[in-house]
Amino acid sequence: MVEHRDPGPTLAAIARAAGVSVPTASKVVNDRDGVAPETRARVMEALDRLGYVRRRRRGVRPALVELVADRLDSPWSGAVLRAVERAVGEVGIGLLVSSPSAVAAERGEPAWLFRYRSGRSDGVLFCLDVSAPAVHAWLERYPALPFVLIGPGLGPPTWAVSVSATNRQGGASAAAHLLGLGHRRLAVIGGPSGSLAGRERVIGFQSVLREAGLPAAPVGFADFDEALARRRTVELLSRPERPTALFACSDRMARGAFTQLAALGLRVPEDVSVVGFDGLPEATWPGVRLTTVRQPVSEMATTGLEILLGLVAGDSRDITGVEVATRLVEGDTTARPPDRTGPRAPRVGGKAMSRHRPSW
Amino acid sequence: MVEHRDPGPTLAAIARAAGVSVPTASKVVNDRDGVAPETRARVMEALDRLGYVRRRRRGVRPALVELVADRLDSPWSGAVLRAVERAVGEVGIGLLVSSPSAVAAERGEPAWLFRYRSGRSDGVLFCLDVSAPAVHAWLERYPALPFVLIGPGLGPPTWAVSVSATNRQGGASAAAHLLGLGHRRLAVIGGPSGSLAGRERVIGFQSVLREAGLPAAPVGFADFDEALARRRTVELLSRPERPTALFACSDRMARGAFTQLAALGLRVPEDVSVVGFDGLPEATWPGVRLTTVRQPVSEMATTGLEILLGLVAGDSRDITGVEVATRLVEGDTTARPPDRTGPRAPRVGGKAMSRHRPSW
Repeated sequence: MVEHRDPGPTLAAIARAAGVSVPTASKVVNDRDGVAPETRARVMEALDRLGYVRRRRRGVRPALVELVADRLDSPWSGAVLRAVERAVGEVGIGLLVSSPSAVAAERGEPAWLFRYRSGRSDGVLFCLDVSAPAVHAWLERYPALPFVLIGPGLGPPTWAVSVSATNRQGGASAAAHLLGLGHRRLAVIGGPSGSLAGRERVIGFQSVLREAGLPAAPVGFADFDEALARRRTVELLSRPERPTALFACSDRMARGAFTQLAALGLRVPEDVSVVGFDGLPEATWPGVRLTTVRQPVSEMATTGLEILLGLVAGDSRDITGVEVATRLVEGDTTARPPDRTGPRAPRVGGKAMSRHRPSW
Repeated sequence: MVEHRDPGPTLAAIARAAGVSVPTASKVVNDRDGVAPETRARVMEALDRLGYVRRRRRGVRPALVELVADRLDSPWSGAVLRAVERAVGEVGIGLLVSSPSAVAAERGEPAWLFRYRSGRSDGVLFCLDVSAPAVHAWLERYPALPFVLIGPGLGPPTWAVSVSATNRQGGASAAAHLLGLGHRRLAVIGGPSGSLAGRERVIGFQSVLREAGLPAAPVGFADFDEALARRRTVELLSRPERPTALFACSDRMARGAFTQLAALGLRVPEDVSVVGFDGLPEATWPGVRLTTVRQPVSEMATTGLEILLGLVAGDSRDITGVEVATRLVEGDTTARPPDRTGPRAPRVGGKAMSRHRPSW
């Protein structure tokens, strides 16, 4: 945990280090015209060397905060964005939105960092997956920057404040639901093996099986990807002990499993039950409501914003993680297993399996 | 068409009208502290009376533009947002995002307008449906504000610059596709009856029927809503001349039609063909790729941004509308009609109709 609100070097110190006047240093920091390129480069170099972050008055209500999200058009980011937008709108704060790959011209640093450093944003909410390591590295260089991670997919840095769903408990609720229906042969389609959230969901799921005296469920990792989930479904269904239920660690992967089961001629939920994780709109499609573990996205987003505004106002980083409760929502894709005594299942891919294939 | 870049009153004129000093007027305009509430109110009143818009230097690269969208978590807004974010990121501009309902505190004016007037944004892209009339009324009061409407659902004001899909041609391509497959009994599920885009799609569709010497297709209006589209599907399928193909003016409504057809025991496309409009991710769900008229959302968004940046830089409003081409994408939901000679179809809702109901 770092000292919060490290004020960093003053503009005067920057000017001294770069050998320029304070007004010149100010122009560069604020991205204004009227500075020779070579002078600008010298000041930027000094800024980086000294880890400069534009000073803010303590206790002032911020004007703009930034949401930085991977895959801005995904249902997950969309749900976070909507919740954050509504919450900032209510308190009269503007919302900047960008992806982690947006880079400030001539600087090579992320646009969100540049905007913070030049005073155009007051703090940042992150909603990341693939880009997390690169972002964490930048955050480490600017410890005074107020930020909160929402639903971090990868392990957050120890000094970061994050708001997550209760992933472990959510995985456990999926297992409890399936055991309650009578399933004993279970399998899991996991997220990326490096994903903290994905791992927690699997751990929670397996812990309930262990408590029930059952062996651990086989896991196929599918990177939160629909097509990969279809492949893992084929593999898991080809096991001698064919599972009667699949727990997919995201709705997207549950869709893949669902599609693949239909292609294999297996009915959901009559032959195989499917549980997803997320509870976003993509968990519903014509004729089907997925049984899924709902993440309280909106609550996570507004909680994250509240914490961020506290950090901007000068609160200390005395909390590092907040968890918001998940809830299993029963849909149409889970039911009792077809035969609880479990005769050996027919081989997957055999011609006879196609007879139930839906006509559309 | 209005005179572009109306400079509006100066800060000095505002100060004079409000009976305050120029620095005080400046503080209010820039939302800074240190002004008595009553003085602030007087200045705000003068600002409104004089239609003040913060002056900008001509030709300066903007720092921030704003995207104002209804339903920020919809696939449509998500696609626009992603395209705009990428485009602004490439030119080093920041993106503010808000919904039209966000209001600047103590002012009663929309947050996007307040941010523009106080210099925090340089121009606005709108992506509206329900809120369009209210927004248009504000725009009329601030003619110097650079803005572009993306895919306007309602008729844009005559002086607005808008970027749309070729809705009419798109509707025509849906009709041509269905006629080419041999369909002769067609029906349409339309958007809100007041929607310009929706109306254009229907007009284009009907024009092709007329050219082919066919009667106009019956239209049920469903407000771009999935549940309402289900009801219209029941009504249209109950007609004595039961249609063999439905054209839904949005993918969302096509989903509704699809679901309802399955519930009626009708197979898609064997019994009834379905064409949607949009081509967003929601046009695909497990086992089904909808045949749909794809809107080039990303191209519309980037074109809109280019025009906006031109307006910010001082371009005149010599264009008022740009259309970007649509394209019919064939999926799994259209095929030849079941029987081209067309015997009288069985009554919808009869028990025998349920036999094809999919098992999942």
